[in-house]
Amino acid sequence: MKPISTLAEGVAPSATLAVDSLAKQMKADGKPVIGFGTGEPDFDTPQNIKDAAVAAIAAGKTKYTAASGIAELKKAVCARLREDCGPGYAPAEIVIASGAKHSFYAALRALLNPGDEAVIPAPYWVTYPEAVKMCGAVPVIVAADESAGFKITAAQLEAAVTPKTKLFIINNPSNPTGMLYSEAELRALADVCVRHDLYIVADEIYYKLVYSGKFTSIASLGADIKERTVLINGVSKSYAMTGWRIGYSASSASLARVMENYLSHSTSAPSTVSQWAAVEALAGDQTSVEAMRLEFVRRREYIVRRVNEIPDLSCITPDGAFYVMINVSRLFGRTTGGAAIANADDFALALLERKLVALVSCESFGAPGFVRMTYAAGMDDIAEGLDRIAEFVAGDAQG
Amino acid sequence: MKPISTLAEGVAPSATLAVDSLAKQMKADGKPVIGFGTGEPDFDTPQNIKDAAVAAIAAGKTKYTAASGIAELKKAVCARLREDCGPGYAPAEIVIASGAKHSFYAALRALLNPGDEAVIPAPYWVTYPEAVKMCGAVPVIVAADESAGFKITAAQLEAAVTPKTKLFIINNPSNPTGMLYSEAELRALADVCVRHDLYIVADEIYYKLVYSGKFTSIASLGADIKERTVLINGVSKSYAMTGWRIGYSASSASLARVMENYLSHSTSAPSTVSQWAAVEALAGDQTSVEAMRLEFVRRREYIVRRVNEIPDLSCITPDGAFYVMINVSRLFGRTTGGAAIANADDFALALLERKLVALVSCESFGAPGFVRMTYAAGMDDIAEGLDRIAEFVAGDAQG
Repeated sequence: MKPISTLAEGVAPSATLAVDSLAKQMKADGKPVIGFGTGEPDFDTPQNIKDAAVAAIAAGKTKYTAASGIAELKKAVCARLREDCGPGYAPAEIVIASGAKHSFYAALRALLNPGDEAVIPAPYWVTYPEAVKMCGAVPVIVAADESAGFKITAAQLEAAVTPKTKLFIINNPSNPTGMLYSEAELRALADVCVRHDLYIVADEIYYKLVYSGKFTSIASLGADIKERTVLINGVSKSYAMTGWRIGYSASSASLARVMENYLSHSTSAPSTVSQWAAVEALAGDQTSVEAMRLEFVRRREYIVRRVNEIPDLSCITPDGAFYVMINVSRLFGRTTGGAAIANADDFALALLERKLVALVSCESFGAPGFVRMTYAAGMDDIAEGLDRIAEFVAGDAQG
Repeated sequence: MKPISTLAEGVAPSATLAVDSLAKQMKADGKPVIGFGTGEPDFDTPQNIKDAAVAAIAAGKTKYTAASGIAELKKAVCARLREDCGPGYAPAEIVIASGAKHSFYAALRALLNPGDEAVIPAPYWVTYPEAVKMCGAVPVIVAADESAGFKITAAQLEAAVTPKTKLFIINNPSNPTGMLYSEAELRALADVCVRHDLYIVADEIYYKLVYSGKFTSIASLGADIKERTVLINGVSKSYAMTGWRIGYSASSASLARVMENYLSHSTSAPSTVSQWAAVEALAGDQTSVEAMRLEFVRRREYIVRRVNEIPDLSCITPDGAFYVMINVSRLFGRTTGGAAIANADDFALALLERKLVALVSCESFGAPGFVRMTYAAGMDDIAEGLDRIAEFVAGDAQG
């Protein structure tokens, strides 16, 4: 048989979903696995949103919509963005897609030519460099370590720019680090983008989940910044709607048309029922969002305290999202819980096998030496999971 | 601002969705437009399927699934394919995606390298050449005219093959023609593909909507054919589920893994609620499918008779799907209903403006001289629409 697509063949499976699949398989096999793998709120989708979906089904809202989504949802997106974080967009600048990941992919497809470079701060969400490579473009990684709060500086960005640089990808608040860029930090980064005529692809999916500091949307920093920015967002994280698959982008109208045309020939619009559910999420009662946020705050405090109590483990306090970066590097070169640990992959695998706790190694997130723990899991699981991690590190292997 | 993606910028909007958007806009403006534009059954989604979706929502089945879909749906796909049309697939060979269009796109992305050629019979669904171009590959169009029943021959396919040919795209039954390839015709085409080591991307989304002749899945014709085939299918057309966005592919397990990885970084799985609805569609009671099919038969007979009664219009009888290709070429160069008609675009636009009937010009479907009328619309609309078309052609302009 002839060779298949070189680019497609080179795509690595999603590390987060892979760990989750393994953990789910172990669970299905009857093992009491506690999963802190995928970034998926444990909360059920709020009832008002479910009710809206059921009403849409009953009303026969199950037909094709415009490829870029229903007008009601675009309007709700504009109103929500304006109320929550400032930037004013018109419905013609909004494109609805099948999840924020899909919006991100469509933005890259609209912007990147083969050979273009895309600057990505590390630690990064693993899809960023993979999606860039899928476009035949080149991810340029700029690393920020724990001592820098996992945030890159404008000088670092500037140093990474070449004549081939097309765009800068920023995830704020960040997955996997949970860190938040301040307005001043964002402005310095954006200024570099304006000076070098770079597009900004800003994934702000976690913007409602902020616990310390104040979230600033990069698109709110000025017209010269907004015009070159594609905001990526969605309902998955803030509204516990991961499985509904509704994301959106906000950009210039001309770029929105290119993205719509692209989607019209590659997927069409997302589920119509999900679109109506998302209208209720964005335009309806917002109290469930705040309730979930407060619960995330409580979990964050607990995890940060417990992790730093475990000898040889540590973490800094994240500002938002629902991730903690646990530094496991002080264990390397030793035998822990009966397993030789040379890197974070070893730690994660041994912990899953011996203590049935699923974390994600950050080796593939551009953060060697760290594992990511989500706190999108219930407090009982979090407490039990941390007990097992402490036991594992203490060498009390039972598995 | 720097130039955006050349390939993305070159993507044409979907002609069928564009006509539908214009017609919907006119309707929203209060005009009594009758739409025969998109290929969307007018039937509501059957109640058992809606009930399954509501049950999934109530049960909190609203979380991420594996990127290639839930195991229950893959199993249901395998059973349905085996029962309906023969080819035996295992769940690991099935990949669920966000609509059959998405499955088709993922298949092309998995197979095509830039510069590869893909052979497409004309008349074609407009997404086929656009999606090929989006991959940087080259659509090679092989035309079949009305006298050939809009079907290409093995000799035509053979003549189009070059060393760069990677795959052959076949849509059977066909959108826009409604024609069905016989088993012998399919086998002759498949033999060319085997001989030249071509992949076959077979879109069989209309396979349950066949009214004359017998449907044969190309993958059922032998192991050497099956191994190089990616079947594309979904629930949209047969189960009146267009807006639920569930498609699937069946291929070799190795290609399925490549497609899954690709999807895991570009969209993730489709809506979880929609996946559970699709399980009920494929595994549940099938009586609604046959009821819809019989209604389509009735409409087909009526339309074919009426069209051929209109002077200077004609159509051949389609075998399946829900499209009729109306030959309007005998009107060209004349003034009809007050409008100068030089091509099918002119005809479709004048008909929409003057008689408020939306058909799709097939100029962009590789079939100049034809307009496509869907019969996925109710009988009252069909009768009234044909009255208006007859009036328009008779020059009785009222608009």
